[in-house]
Amino acid sequence: MKNKRKIDICLTPSMIDLFDLSNKQIVIIDVFRATSAMCVFLNNGGKDVIPVATVEEAELYKQKMNNISSDKYLVAAERNGVIVPGFDFGNSPLLYDGVNFDNVSLVITTTNGTIAIEKSKKAGKEMLLASFLNASALVEHILNEHKGDLLIVCSGWKGRFCVEDVLLAGFLSKKLLINNEFHSVSDSVLMAKHMYQLAKSNMFDFLLNSSYSKRMNLDQDMKYCLQIDIMSIVPFWSSEDNFSNGRFSI
Amino acid sequence: MKNKRKIDICLTPSMIDLFDLSNKQIVIIDVFRATSAMCVFLNNGGKDVIPVATVEEAELYKQKMNNISSDKYLVAAERNGVIVPGFDFGNSPLLYDGVNFDNVSLVITTTNGTIAIEKSKKAGKEMLLASFLNASALVEHILNEHKGDLLIVCSGWKGRFCVEDVLLAGFLSKKLLINNEFHSVSDSVLMAKHMYQLAKSNMFDFLLNSSYSKRMNLDQDMKYCLQIDIMSIVPFWSSEDNFSNGRFSI
Repeated sequence: MKNKRKIDICLTPSMIDLFDLSNKQIVIIDVFRATSAMCVFLNNGGKDVIPVATVEEAELYKQKMNNISSDKYLVAAERNGVIVPGFDFGNSPLLYDGVNFDNVSLVITTTNGTIAIEKSKKAGKEMLLASFLNASALVEHILNEHKGDLLIVCSGWKGRFCVEDVLLAGFLSKKLLINNEFHSVSDSVLMAKHMYQLAKSNMFDFLLNSSYSKRMNLDQDMKYCLQIDIMSIVPFWSSEDNFSNGRFSI
Repeated sequence: MKNKRKIDICLTPSMIDLFDLSNKQIVIIDVFRATSAMCVFLNNGGKDVIPVATVEEAELYKQKMNNISSDKYLVAAERNGVIVPGFDFGNSPLLYDGVNFDNVSLVITTTNGTIAIEKSKKAGKEMLLASFLNASALVEHILNEHKGDLLIVCSGWKGRFCVEDVLLAGFLSKKLLINNEFHSVSDSVLMAKHMYQLAKSNMFDFLLNSSYSKRMNLDQDMKYCLQIDIMSIVPFWSSEDNFSNGRFSI
């Protein structure tokens, strides 16, 4: 057991300081909707995703974009489930679906997902983006790369627990733990696997009782985000370049 | 829905700052084993329980006890599941079972339970102790007292999520939500109800896969703490007296 790779789940970014990230491969989840939207953008040719923590930073990028008069940048901002006034894009994957983004970079800030990313930047080994849309490709990548212990970070909602993120964390944990290389004694993983098992026959119906569904009433977005394995990309983080402090690309 | 009493669950004390406690009735859970042990002590005649956050505070109480040469105080300290050297009692309910504690006060510090209590002292309405041992009595009390919105605080393990606390939170939520007075849109409550439903036919077997079971190997304590409704007490908090900054009594 000692030599196996450990899996754990951080249920919300508000708990992340309890985990040692220094030697970890980290997977970021924000099923509804940040990581799902980022995956759709990258799968449609997008060059990279530059997550920023605040609307103010997104505004600064917008001004910078105007100055260099580039049509190669898209700046998106979402708070509380809606597009921030003054921006044209938010975190709905439907906005990024069916559009060609060849050579376009997406600068984006969202209520929860970009906070999880910001807090996970200390990841020692690798930081990856997960959604149901690319779930099995991600599992395959993690199994092939052998990058040490894995921490799945759920974005939650304003620091609190979200059940949809836990379903995906359960899906990933279950698939990885089938492989003899992995091991877990975490109650979060135990719970997430049970919750996915309970919900998997009809995740949409299951999530009609979730706070996201009741708060947002975004059935089409939910259905879109719950599609499993419609793409095979694995977005990974690379930090520090001349333009930003890091970005996801595939 | 607006006028119904809301139920929410704080999954670990590390998330408690996300909740407004000012107008809340709060229930503290530490199934393995602090709140279970406190309930056993009080049910066996114990006068009151004085929770303290640190071993140092417990040491101070011990010295104070020696000075007043009283046999009416018991000082207990547990860290990482074992009795702290120099103390005779910890948080095993078996230590308090079958003993008469008439007129005895218990000063106690534990790894997780007393931290949850410390952080929940801002409770606006009432703070109560819950275990499976007194679960239905607690539900009846909450239904009868009409003390506003309810927050169930799980003690977890060193700030992290624990599944056994969530099973009791699920039990309590389920029993309360059957009553038309209560209402919840919380994903923590949704998850806890599902987890209790999954585990209820044999909670001990279910929890053999938990991190507590694997870490501690305390089957007899676990079995003791998983007995439902073997007592009908409702320990409640009263703050500020000459001796301590608060205590639980029945």
